[in-house]
Amino acid sequence: MKTETTIQGLSASLSPARTARKMIGFVPTMGNLHEGHLNLVREARKLCDTVVVSIFVNPIQFGPNEDFDSYPRTLEQDQRLLAEAGCDIVFAPTVEQMYGNKPRLTNISVGGITNDLCGLQRPGHFDGVAVVVTKLFNIVQPNFAFFGQKDYQQLAVIRQFVRDLNIPLEVIGVPIARATDGLALSSRNGYLSAENRAIAPAIYQSLKVAEQQLLAGTVLSEVLQNIKSALTDAGFVVDYVEARTTELQNIEQFDADMVLFIAAKLGATRLIDNLQVKYPAS
Amino acid sequence: MKTETTIQGLSASLSPARTARKMIGFVPTMGNLHEGHLNLVREARKLCDTVVVSIFVNPIQFGPNEDFDSYPRTLEQDQRLLAEAGCDIVFAPTVEQMYGNKPRLTNISVGGITNDLCGLQRPGHFDGVAVVVTKLFNIVQPNFAFFGQKDYQQLAVIRQFVRDLNIPLEVIGVPIARATDGLALSSRNGYLSAENRAIAPAIYQSLKVAEQQLLAGTVLSEVLQNIKSALTDAGFVVDYVEARTTELQNIEQFDADMVLFIAAKLGATRLIDNLQVKYPAS
Repeated sequence: MKTETTIQGLSASLSPARTARKMIGFVPTMGNLHEGHLNLVREARKLCDTVVVSIFVNPIQFGPNEDFDSYPRTLEQDQRLLAEAGCDIVFAPTVEQMYGNKPRLTNISVGGITNDLCGLQRPGHFDGVAVVVTKLFNIVQPNFAFFGQKDYQQLAVIRQFVRDLNIPLEVIGVPIARATDGLALSSRNGYLSAENRAIAPAIYQSLKVAEQQLLAGTVLSEVLQNIKSALTDAGFVVDYVEARTTELQNIEQFDADMVLFIAAKLGATRLIDNLQVKYPAS
Repeated sequence: MKTETTIQGLSASLSPARTARKMIGFVPTMGNLHEGHLNLVREARKLCDTVVVSIFVNPIQFGPNEDFDSYPRTLEQDQRLLAEAGCDIVFAPTVEQMYGNKPRLTNISVGGITNDLCGLQRPGHFDGVAVVVTKLFNIVQPNFAFFGQKDYQQLAVIRQFVRDLNIPLEVIGVPIARATDGLALSSRNGYLSAENRAIAPAIYQSLKVAEQQLLAGTVLSEVLQNIKSALTDAGFVVDYVEARTTELQNIEQFDADMVLFIAAKLGATRLIDNLQVKYPAS
């Protein structure tokens, strides 16, 4: 496995694969890798000849009061895990390599689906994601790109701009990886105290309870309210609990496949999770 | 020379060139071709193995009161001219082929350099250009893309987002093609009455006079005022007369290479032109 830190170096490393028209799979990450990321890499390994993983903590997707500076950077450990998972090339550029010295004047914004859920609390976040992912797509030029369904809204944003801009690749969404107690894996779980780590699985538990309630016929608004109460009782400060169609449109009652979304804070740590609930075939 | 009207057809036509790693040159146009466009095609022919020209009147770069519906569409004549100029593949998609049936939610905006000159009178115009050119770049995936210097601000916008988004191609700017009387070639010249067509070269003449005045030491503000007076006297309604650095930054006096910009209306027809003025080496 090679590690490249410059665009030029990466291009040189990828050149033989491109010339041979190999299938290139790409997994963009911010590092501090866990099983969720490694699942993406394994999925890429299955589908592609050459697997590229980027590790780049992207400053422009963090808000002014967010955790850019303190975001965990663990390159050596990440490299070890990636080699085991079957990565061929790690691309770990500096901020300067990605954004250069001249000011960036270009922005990409995806309307509609970025205006609520995480978009409300994180203004500009999805623009920053769209810009960096577009840049990485143009640098790596993969055939397939892999993203986790944990960041469901992010995945929807990426699918949207890939379609709108005719970016020549296929986006693959990979199911959420969870700890044995159900907590969705996330780099930010590392911020939790031992006490809060023990409480955190309540998010997933509340989603599974909600699924049962929906299938038993409880009305949607009551189900959402139950999640909020359960989380507040457990010690969370709820940011949102929402239901959407799989395309992120509003949904008033459980009459189609849908997704339940939660964002909630435990101490200073903001956690997100979601669960797709299939509408039973009649 | 082939004409393709679908993305799929174009991809199939380009597939052999891509497999053989041929250099692909791309000239995006809105059709109604003149010598200016054909110069771009000839330039592409010189540098590239395969030359693709798109003909697409892009609705999203026209304002609500602009000439989208009446913009001249002359596909058969364009095809004849392109075959003579050495084009290999014409890509002439429908609006539906380019924008599909689902709503587009993604926008690309280039800040700073789009806020004045033509950007002032045409809000959203450069966003529409950025979106369609990015889409076309992703569809054609050329090694080189050719644009005329007549639309200098557009060229600067394209260079900017190509750099900001790491789009893997080289942008080539080609000098303005002019009629023998100096009028910059433009599809919109066809809208001019015979009388106004005779007046129109005054734009270029005023730029050449300005160049002489600048080289003779006349202060910049006076030179710009002289252009305005000359055009107003000739019957134009001046939209703007401006001086900028070659990178479109403001410039107060002639102390570096610069570009003079004019936009002016003759009747209902808005004409633009520009002239680069070299600062004499000391």
